Amino acid sequence: MTLTGTLLVGARDVTAEKHFRAVNPATGEQLEPDFACATQADVDAACRLAAGAFDPYRALSFAARADFLDTIARCLGEDTDAIVARAGLETALPEARLKGEMGRTMGQLRLFATLVRQGEWSEPRIDPARPDRTPMPRADLRQRQIGVGPVAVFGASNFPLAFSVAGGDTVSALAAGCPVVCRAHPAHPGTGELVGRAIRRAITACGLPEGVFSLLGGSGHDVGGWLVQHPAIMAVGFTGSYAGGMAIAALAAQRAVPIPVFAEMGSINPVYLCPQALAARTDSLATGFVASLTMGVGQFCTNPGIIIAPEGAAFEEFVRLSAQAIATRDAGVMLTAGICTAYDSGTAALAQRPGVTRVGVGHEGTGPNRAQPMLLRTTAKDFMRDPAMRHEIFGPVSLLVSYADEAELHALTESLDGQLTITLQMDENDTAYARGLLPVFERKAGRILVNAWPTGVEVCHAMVHGGPFPATTDARTTSVGTAAIKRFLRPVCYQDLPDVLLPPELARDNPLGLSRLVDGTMQSR
Amino acid sequence: MTLTGTLLVGARDVTAEKHFRAVNPATGEQLEPDFACATQADVDAACRLAAGAFDPYRALSFAARADFLDTIARCLGEDTDAIVARAGLETALPEARLKGEMGRTMGQLRLFATLVRQGEWSEPRIDPARPDRTPMPRADLRQRQIGVGPVAVFGASNFPLAFSVAGGDTVSALAAGCPVVCRAHPAHPGTGELVGRAIRRAITACGLPEGVFSLLGGSGHDVGGWLVQHPAIMAVGFTGSYAGGMAIAALAAQRAVPIPVFAEMGSINPVYLCPQALAARTDSLATGFVASLTMGVGQFCTNPGIIIAPEGAAFEEFVRLSAQAIATRDAGVMLTAGICTAYDSGTAALAQRPGVTRVGVGHEGTGPNRAQPMLLRTTAKDFMRDPAMRHEIFGPVSLLVSYADEAELHALTESLDGQLTITLQMDENDTAYARGLLPVFERKAGRILVNAWPTGVEVCHAMVHGGPFPATTDARTTSVGTAAIKRFLRPVCYQDLPDVLLPPELARDNPLGLSRLVDGTMQSR
Repeated sequence: MTLTGTLLVGARDVTAEKHFRAVNPATGEQLEPDFACATQADVDAACRLAAGAFDPYRALSFAARADFLDTIARCLGEDTDAIVARAGLETALPEARLKGEMGRTMGQLRLFATLVRQGEWSEPRIDPARPDRTPMPRADLRQRQIGVGPVAVFGASNFPLAFSVAGGDTVSALAAGCPVVCRAHPAHPGTGELVGRAIRRAITACGLPEGVFSLLGGSGHDVGGWLVQHPAIMAVGFTGSYAGGMAIAALAAQRAVPIPVFAEMGSINPVYLCPQALAARTDSLATGFVASLTMGVGQFCTNPGIIIAPEGAAFEEFVRLSAQAIATRDAGVMLTAGICTAYDSGTAALAQRPGVTRVGVGHEGTGPNRAQPMLLRTTAKDFMRDPAMRHEIFGPVSLLVSYADEAELHALTESLDGQLTITLQMDENDTAYARGLLPVFERKAGRILVNAWPTGVEVCHAMVHGGPFPATTDARTTSVGTAAIKRFLRPVCYQDLPDVLLPPELARDNPLGLSRLVDGTMQSR
Repeated sequence: MTLTGTLLVGARDVTAEKHFRAVNPATGEQLEPDFACATQADVDAACRLAAGAFDPYRALSFAARADFLDTIARCLGEDTDAIVARAGLETALPEARLKGEMGRTMGQLRLFATLVRQGEWSEPRIDPARPDRTPMPRADLRQRQIGVGPVAVFGASNFPLAFSVAGGDTVSALAAGCPVVCRAHPAHPGTGELVGRAIRRAITACGLPEGVFSLLGGSGHDVGGWLVQHPAIMAVGFTGSYAGGMAIAALAAQRAVPIPVFAEMGSINPVYLCPQALAARTDSLATGFVASLTMGVGQFCTNPGIIIAPEGAAFEEFVRLSAQAIATRDAGVMLTAGICTAYDSGTAALAQRPGVTRVGVGHEGTGPNRAQPMLLRTTAKDFMRDPAMRHEIFGPVSLLVSYADEAELHALTESLDGQLTITLQMDENDTAYARGLLPVFERKAGRILVNAWPTGVEVCHAMVHGGPFPATTDARTTSVGTAAIKRFLRPVCYQDLPDVLLPPELARDNPLGLSRLVDGTMQSR
């Protein structure tokens, strides 16, 4: 597979005057070829194509839309070797991880294909006419969900496949009937191009309008800015840093027509070690914790960035064992030089906050962009005094926080910002302890785990990868799992429409055989 | 029932230094008693009480929460006569209308009580553990919806009961498990107090925490501003003007923790007269139109503010008959002096736009705050040239717009802003015409009607009272009907929680007997 470095504006390959190159983070060397930086005219062309494709694309039958998603999965599958090879060069992620992520990406497409084919995502609601009702007859009212319009997608650096060009945001937007204009992540432009070309092949194979998908590259922030502010764009999906997400949300709010921004901005994912569990399983907790912390060089949105535990002998032992475990860990290559620089400065700054002590480090790195794993400790008192300790440092660092008593535990918990996850390590005797915290966790986090580590995110129906601000800009959603489709849907109500004008999911004879809410009661197919 | 004019801060009656009075719009006279203007400290007290009530209130069983909503309906019912009498003085709405609205308000509470009791609003989703899955086992994952937290409600002037203190926003927030802090509408403070006291009686009768509901009055914008910016408030429901909604949205966006604002800001609700229907039913269309336009002195969010029809003899006849019908209409009393002034200046300005002609008026008013019904006409060309014609004028005025050909029809339709409703008056032979417009209507409006008038809004499951900006600030929602509960919910995922910690809607033995989505398939109770 030859990379051209062009933009994919609908069916056209578009070159540019300005270019940039990808960098191999393991060596610091630039990679061939040159990649085009989109101009504002390119962004405009892609967005206009997307707007034009919206009505015909959403008019497809559910079966045809589902086939399209399956076809993308098939086309990606054909190119797996090339994509994994290029992604390895651009991200320094190991081949096994990338192959796994490729499988996850294709599985995600197929899961959404099944969802779309089943049809209940359209949430049909029917209140039939009651012509005899007094004092006023009731009209026939039918509601379904439709796509919001073209969606701008900003891929994540840390999941170059599952959360990038054909990742969770793209697939949930396409599933909802929304064309996608993707801003290619500059850290893996070659991977992006290969994936984008696979999507384009699927569009051709399915005979869809070219505007259903475009891919725009660039090295700075201007492409993203033009994209978010383009009048044709009706929603934004973003995964990345707090600063990036907030910049996009601010641009969206300035539009003449404001649009929703679904920005997943990460969090520190507190892990609570309950007293009984901490005492009974000190060793395995320390081992499990350090494995979760250092997996993928700590580059997960759900990395355990803070451990909360009662002070005392068991905690001291946990600290000692965790420090011992981390001391054996290598300095892994981070995704980009920017991420590594932020990690180094972030850990250096955190280590110097009042009340913070460094208690363990992994091996020092040799070569560029290596992140030395690190453990720090502090007390709940110091943590609550210092808002700087609450900020995520992306990478393999965690802060171990001990509290003196129950009052401190609860004050600390209430002081937490919104989180993607909160984890409880608990034994049976910790149940009352856990029960006291659970209502607060529900207010603070999108996902609550027991006796697991937060770094695994299952793509399924019940997953919530989201949470209260600042974990995301909209706590009412998830960016992983089938419920992610809801971000890009809005309801439309049809009053007294003749059957000939009703969409099939609402037609009186229920030709799709859907489960529908009729007069408030679910009626099965 | 004696009015005290106090704020209802939880269970406390709070007096103030600053006061204001309600005005009888029919006479312009001030009404007894003085009503307290809340201070920032009062707002803070109410919001803190709401925050404290959130966990215990949402922990109620669904049955107990439903009983509370039913109890509010019962308490309101006990006070119907007093409420209707006071509302009549404060709004000049006729008794029959207010009694009907009272019934609607109680019916809405009971409908949400049934919804809450049934339980599927919590959308339980379960992906059971798969310990044997390779290469990785799957954890047990369960998702439910919970309330977002305390909600600020801004009532509407035009529905002093169904969209005010105990109206659609309040009931959907309470149904979602969210305490409510209501900013009383200054146009009907006495009505608000009576309704608020009924809610408070229901809180006492059900033994709920006092912070579940507070009512704060004031004559200016400061109370609303403090409320929207209070850190305890997690969402806002608003029904009113574009300027009001946008001001609240701007305040919410400036918060340290941004929150969603669900502002329903009205629209011009285009009505399309299809060629065949216009020719065949000119007379009845004109009669129906003028009846819809002047109902309630035109003070409905879904008032038909613009008629779109093909130019020609049938349209001229429609204009003539509509003008004839409106000439018989009285000048009704508007809700407030402010609304009447805006109506007078808005209609005067619109009548002077280039290409606009006044074609009919109703009787001139005698006495304060009377709105003279009015019809104006223009062409599609002029309408598209002049953005000023797109703005809603609240009251009994409509603009009749004729287009020359299909190209103009489609350009005009694409140029429309987001709407609450779009209506088609069509006959069987208009089907092709309607089919061509429908996809555009779906992008532009929350509700599409055929052969009806938009001014009736049914409270049911399929209703959408919402629509793309500027009709609302969030097109993904409705403020009428049971789907309105979704505005105040967010998902939480529970991973591997023992049954003893799971909420009943997610417990393994399904004690509530709910329909739940298990592995992506709905399993009935």
